[in-house]
Amino acid sequence: MNGDTTEEVRHLYMKVYEYMKDLIISGAYAFGEKIPSKRALASLLHCSLNTVQSAYGQLVDEGYLIAKEKKGYYVANLEGVAADMRQVEPIEVSQRQVVLFRYNFSYQGIDLSAFPITVWRRLTREVLSDETRSFLESGNPKGEWDLRVSIATYLRLSRGVQCTPNQILIGSGTEYLLQLLIQLFDAETVYAIENPGYEKLALMFTRARVSFRPINVDESGLVPQSLADSDADVVCITPSHQFPTGSIMPVGRRVQLLSWAQEKEGRYIIEDDYDSEFRFAGKPIPSLQGLDQSGRVIYLGSFSKSLFPSLRISYLVLPDQLIYRYDEVLSFTVCPVPLTEQLTLAHFLSRGHFDRHLNRMRKLYRGKRDTLVAALKASFSGIRIEGASGGCHLLVHLDSQIPEEIFVRRAAEAGVKVYALSRFFCARTQRPRTSTLLLGYASLSLQEIQDAVELLKVAWNVL
Amino acid sequence: MNGDTTEEVRHLYMKVYEYMKDLIISGAYAFGEKIPSKRALASLLHCSLNTVQSAYGQLVDEGYLIAKEKKGYYVANLEGVAADMRQVEPIEVSQRQVVLFRYNFSYQGIDLSAFPITVWRRLTREVLSDETRSFLESGNPKGEWDLRVSIATYLRLSRGVQCTPNQILIGSGTEYLLQLLIQLFDAETVYAIENPGYEKLALMFTRARVSFRPINVDESGLVPQSLADSDADVVCITPSHQFPTGSIMPVGRRVQLLSWAQEKEGRYIIEDDYDSEFRFAGKPIPSLQGLDQSGRVIYLGSFSKSLFPSLRISYLVLPDQLIYRYDEVLSFTVCPVPLTEQLTLAHFLSRGHFDRHLNRMRKLYRGKRDTLVAALKASFSGIRIEGASGGCHLLVHLDSQIPEEIFVRRAAEAGVKVYALSRFFCARTQRPRTSTLLLGYASLSLQEIQDAVELLKVAWNVL
Repeated sequence: MNGDTTEEVRHLYMKVYEYMKDLIISGAYAFGEKIPSKRALASLLHCSLNTVQSAYGQLVDEGYLIAKEKKGYYVANLEGVAADMRQVEPIEVSQRQVVLFRYNFSYQGIDLSAFPITVWRRLTREVLSDETRSFLESGNPKGEWDLRVSIATYLRLSRGVQCTPNQILIGSGTEYLLQLLIQLFDAETVYAIENPGYEKLALMFTRARVSFRPINVDESGLVPQSLADSDADVVCITPSHQFPTGSIMPVGRRVQLLSWAQEKEGRYIIEDDYDSEFRFAGKPIPSLQGLDQSGRVIYLGSFSKSLFPSLRISYLVLPDQLIYRYDEVLSFTVCPVPLTEQLTLAHFLSRGHFDRHLNRMRKLYRGKRDTLVAALKASFSGIRIEGASGGCHLLVHLDSQIPEEIFVRRAAEAGVKVYALSRFFCARTQRPRTSTLLLGYASLSLQEIQDAVELLKVAWNVL
Repeated sequence: MNGDTTEEVRHLYMKVYEYMKDLIISGAYAFGEKIPSKRALASLLHCSLNTVQSAYGQLVDEGYLIAKEKKGYYVANLEGVAADMRQVEPIEVSQRQVVLFRYNFSYQGIDLSAFPITVWRRLTREVLSDETRSFLESGNPKGEWDLRVSIATYLRLSRGVQCTPNQILIGSGTEYLLQLLIQLFDAETVYAIENPGYEKLALMFTRARVSFRPINVDESGLVPQSLADSDADVVCITPSHQFPTGSIMPVGRRVQLLSWAQEKEGRYIIEDDYDSEFRFAGKPIPSLQGLDQSGRVIYLGSFSKSLFPSLRISYLVLPDQLIYRYDEVLSFTVCPVPLTEQLTLAHFLSRGHFDRHLNRMRKLYRGKRDTLVAALKASFSGIRIEGASGGCHLLVHLDSQIPEEIFVRRAAEAGVKVYALSRFFCARTQRPRTSTLLLGYASLSLQEIQDAVELLKVAWNVL
């Protein structure tokens, strides 16, 4: 923490503010309950009393806390507002987080230590040294051809995606590409999202002012009957490793969803294949897109998890019909990714570095997964672990009547951040009664995973 | 032209297709008129007969042309449809264009030859060599703090913009940032755009499904009374160098617009300062934002013209009130620009390279402007040149009863691309009766400018 600039200081104070607000909104502190004293929290979070003072002051100002003179801070009555105000977890692999949590089981973090930075540096230098200076010029509005060729090849071989480079559209991040899709579809299109699911989707569709429906997820993923019962036209799913439950959609259900899409003109499935690169047990699950014979699946991929988040490169594979529509109504759109990154990534893919990197990361993440599973099993009896066959997070079902918010809070007080499954449910829908926690393990080392579980053991086993 | 991949071939055929479609839609060829033979066009455009054949075939398929056996190709009756189907000029500094036009007076091109590529390469290497690997991590969701500090300093000193780094939001391109603003404002917000104006705005607002009104521009820029008579809430203007007329908005009119904004809650002015870095005569025109005392101006800037288009970095300066609103409703948004580019640019700005580069470019562009103006005046009598005191394009008013489309067509046949002013008017509004052409000169060398004007002289003086 280099606290030189005002922003850094503000950043820390905001972090503390958000830390407490999150705990309050999630219900970890109940209405009327006294929260830790400023001194206790400052000591817990390793920050100054002033920082906590500012954060608590802000929370009082905003009505989350009530300050009682000489007594301390109490949670205000938030009934009705809390559910709608859940905060989104910012994408984070920053060390700053360490200030607030000694260990963060973030589901968005990745392990950057194994990234082949020397190779990346060399390839970037090569692009920048091109005598033709072509990296300065406006590129292909849909993304560089070489990059699209490399991605198409990778997708065909590794993910069973049937596509040509012409179908690929390069963008910066999932949000950006979903916004494009929203502009591609009619204004009246109704979207379906998984419930529980990726928490940003509801926020994005709300801001884009389109209608969306949360659809139930069971142990095989999105429930086709619930989708059919809704008025949705376009559904966003994560069939390879459902977020957050980690389930893999069986082929029978995939076929059902494809049938649903074919039943009516204008129906599409957006397959978000966000972490399919990392599969540890069994053979790779081919993409849903590869099963599709009727051009109803839009495949969405990203390099944020497989390479590094600040790269901001993602892509769509559009069925032909949508490519035509794109050319018709969105051809004025310019690819937002700088040419330097696109060309560097194209080299990285075409020269085999990506495959080598994925193999390395798969091994690395498998080790972390194994360590976490073993540590959890050794520390807690009666837990059930789910969704651990791939991706970088798993679910822990606790055999307990205690609400999961209490587990989150006890973990936080021990310096460990874990996530309640309930935060991934849409507001206004029924949440599960059992206690389930989500733990991402990509950004922690083997030792950190063991130490963190040790802390959880102490914090939770007294419950 | 390396015609190896299918895309390259397709690209060329599409270019020829668009070239002819553009000429047809713009009215350069009238209904029923015979267009050049395939052989003639192939020779003119230095491409194969097959390419022209494919392009003409496509145009027949789409109903733009009618093929009469053994006679040739004739323009179909397009009455009513033409105005709405005008094509947007793709952003281009590509050499591919050379295939179709020997000289392109593109208004979006820039001179890349003077870019200090060695410095940029060195700064990028420095960023990528950071031992902390911090460039891999997720950055600040609003854009890197250092970059925002550098931009704020530059804007204060060079553009008279009053702002702190907290007000700055980094994005990739004008389109991206306008989409964000649309999400920030209410769904019912009505936008106003300049008429004539930047042709992409109408397309963007249409795709974003919001209402917009074209507002007349006179020799001082947007007409305040026309704005006041409309139901618009948010107006997009280019006061420093109106696009395309090149006029500079006088201070009196600026004050009128600010008053308009203050009259009603929710009114804002988006100041697109797209090429204000390049001013050749008189003293620099301070930004409208600098005059604003009431937080009603949103300043929009970009490095596409001042550095290079493939960088894809632009930014907003938001008034405090909109920053609060952003934090409230769009805080989940992640800055789409890769960290490498952000950090490299921050170094480029803070170490004085940007100022030096701008000084160099100003001199370079002034030379091109002077050459173009001198060549035009020497070649044509009775022309009037407008909007040449800054930016990288100017308007040529021709003292002629001949429609400007004919001038565009004759120029195209001579291998020179110029732009009819009428293409920048919104469909369904009255276009001017005089013939005015827009010529951008940034991407042509002094010799090319002279040669191109020489060709125009031959092509136009026979009219």
